[in-house]
Amino acid sequence: MITHRPHARLAFGQGRASDGSRELPEEVAVAITYNGSTQAVMMATPADLTDFAYGFSLTEGIAMPEEIDSIEVVEAELGIDLQIWLKDAAQARQSARRRSMAGPVGCGLCGIDSLEEAARKPRVVTEQGFTLSPNQIMAAMAALTDHQPLHDITRAAHAAAFWAPGAGILAAREDVGRHNALDKLIGALARAPHVDGALVLTCRTSIDMVQKAAAAGFAMIIAASAPTATAVDMADKAGITLIGLARRDGFEVFTHSHRIAPEEAADVA
Amino acid sequence: MITHRPHARLAFGQGRASDGSRELPEEVAVAITYNGSTQAVMMATPADLTDFAYGFSLTEGIAMPEEIDSIEVVEAELGIDLQIWLKDAAQARQSARRRSMAGPVGCGLCGIDSLEEAARKPRVVTEQGFTLSPNQIMAAMAALTDHQPLHDITRAAHAAAFWAPGAGILAAREDVGRHNALDKLIGALARAPHVDGALVLTCRTSIDMVQKAAAAGFAMIIAASAPTATAVDMADKAGITLIGLARRDGFEVFTHSHRIAPEEAADVA
Repeated sequence: MITHRPHARLAFGQGRASDGSRELPEEVAVAITYNGSTQAVMMATPADLTDFAYGFSLTEGIAMPEEIDSIEVVEAELGIDLQIWLKDAAQARQSARRRSMAGPVGCGLCGIDSLEEAARKPRVVTEQGFTLSPNQIMAAMAALTDHQPLHDITRAAHAAAFWAPGAGILAAREDVGRHNALDKLIGALARAPHVDGALVLTCRTSIDMVQKAAAAGFAMIIAASAPTATAVDMADKAGITLIGLARRDGFEVFTHSHRIAPEEAADVA
Repeated sequence: MITHRPHARLAFGQGRASDGSRELPEEVAVAITYNGSTQAVMMATPADLTDFAYGFSLTEGIAMPEEIDSIEVVEAELGIDLQIWLKDAAQARQSARRRSMAGPVGCGLCGIDSLEEAARKPRVVTEQGFTLSPNQIMAAMAALTDHQPLHDITRAAHAAAFWAPGAGILAAREDVGRHNALDKLIGALARAPHVDGALVLTCRTSIDMVQKAAAAGFAMIIAASAPTATAVDMADKAGITLIGLARRDGFEVFTHSHRIAPEEAADVA
C-alpha cells in the first residue's frame, strides 16, 4: 500500500513563489474489527497493519498474539477493514466485555464511571536487572534517525523503535499517529523472542503511551520530547524508567533512575 | 486549575548528571457528558474547559453555542466531569443519534459501515473575499510565539490561534492535545462576533484538524508542520486554503492558493 504521495504546492520564501511538489504521508481510516464487530476506527499510515493488529490487541488488553486466529487486511473504498479473528476463549471474553459496554456509556447522571473506566491501572514492570549507561541511552536515540524512511521522505511521521545493548535498533515502525507507531512496534516485537532493551520514541510521552508501554512490558522509555506530568506519575507506578528530552548529547530521567548505570559497569553498544 | 507542575529529574549531559526539576504540562481525563450521558473521555490540559465544551460540541456536530443551556466543570477524583446541558431541540437530536449508535458499532460482519461513518463530508467554506499576502502569513505564524504561556514554561504544549489582518492574534488556546487546543479556540471564537482571519497552528495538519476547521468555517489554515496527503484532499474539498511548513521566512501552499494576495493588494498588519 502507498504510504506517501506527492502533492503540488507553491513555495513562498525570499520574496518569491515557486512551483513544485512535496511528498506527504498517506493517512487512511482503518476499522479494527474483532470477529466482525468494529472496535475502533483509527486514522493511520497504511503499512505494517498486521503488526498494528497484534499490537493494538495486546495494548488494549483484548488478546495476546497466541489468542489471535487470523488477521486479514481488506482494502475498501473508504479505508481499510482490519479484520482480526480471535480464538474461542479470547472471543468469549471480548463479547462479554462488549455487552457490558453496549449502549450509552455511563449511568446517565454524570461522567464519573467513565472516568473510572479511563483510569486503568498499568501492568507493573518487574524487570530490575536491565540497565543502560548514559552513552548507551544517547546512542539509542541517535540510532533512531537511520530507521525512519517515511520521515526521511515526508518529514511528517512519528517512529517507535526497540534498541538493545550490543545489537542496536532491532525493530522500528512509523506512522502519522504516535500511538499507532507504538502499537505497530509492539505487535512486531510480541511475535519475536524476548530481548532486554529500551523503547525509543520520536515524540512526547503522554499517559496513554506509558499505558501501552507498560502493557508490553518495556522497562525503559527514551523519548525525544518532554513527558506530561501525568505520564511521569503513571511511569512511576508502572515501574518504568522514563527518559525525556533525549538528544545525542544529553537527556533527562524522570522516574526509576536506578536503571541508569555508570559507563564502566555497562557494555557500550 | 493547575496546568503544569514541577517534577524532580536527573539531567545528563557533558559527562555529568545534575539534580533539578522541570515544569511538565498537566494532563487530565475529561469526561464530556450531554444531559448526563458520556459522549467521550479525552486527556486534556485542564484550562479553558468551557471553551472546550462549546468547541467540541460545535466541531462534532452536536450543538451550536446557542443550543447549549449550561456548562458545568465538575472536578472529580479521577478527572473532570464536563457536564453540558443541551436545550430541548438539540437534546432530542442528540438522543436520537445516540440510540442509533448504541450497541456494538457495525453490522457484525465487517468494518465497512464504520468506515462510512468516519468519512464524514466537510462543510464547504464559501468565503472567497478573504486574502492574505505572503508577509501577512509569515507575520501570523511569527505572532503565535507570543501567545503560548504554557509552552513557554513546559516546551510541551500545542497551540491554536486566530489571526486577523490589522489586529494580530485575537485569541489563542493551548493544550497537550492539538485537537483539544483547536476545539478550545473554536469554542472561544464561536461566542464572539465574526471577524475574517486565519487559523494558526503549531502542529501538523491531519484530516481531523481540517474537518474541525471546516466545521468552524475557517477559510485559511496556517500550520507550522506538514499536512498529511489526506488532509490536503479534505482541505481541497472543503474550500480551505491549506498552508504548511510556515516559518518566519517562508511557507508552502497546498490548496486554494487564490487567497494568497500580492503584497501591494493587501494591508500588511
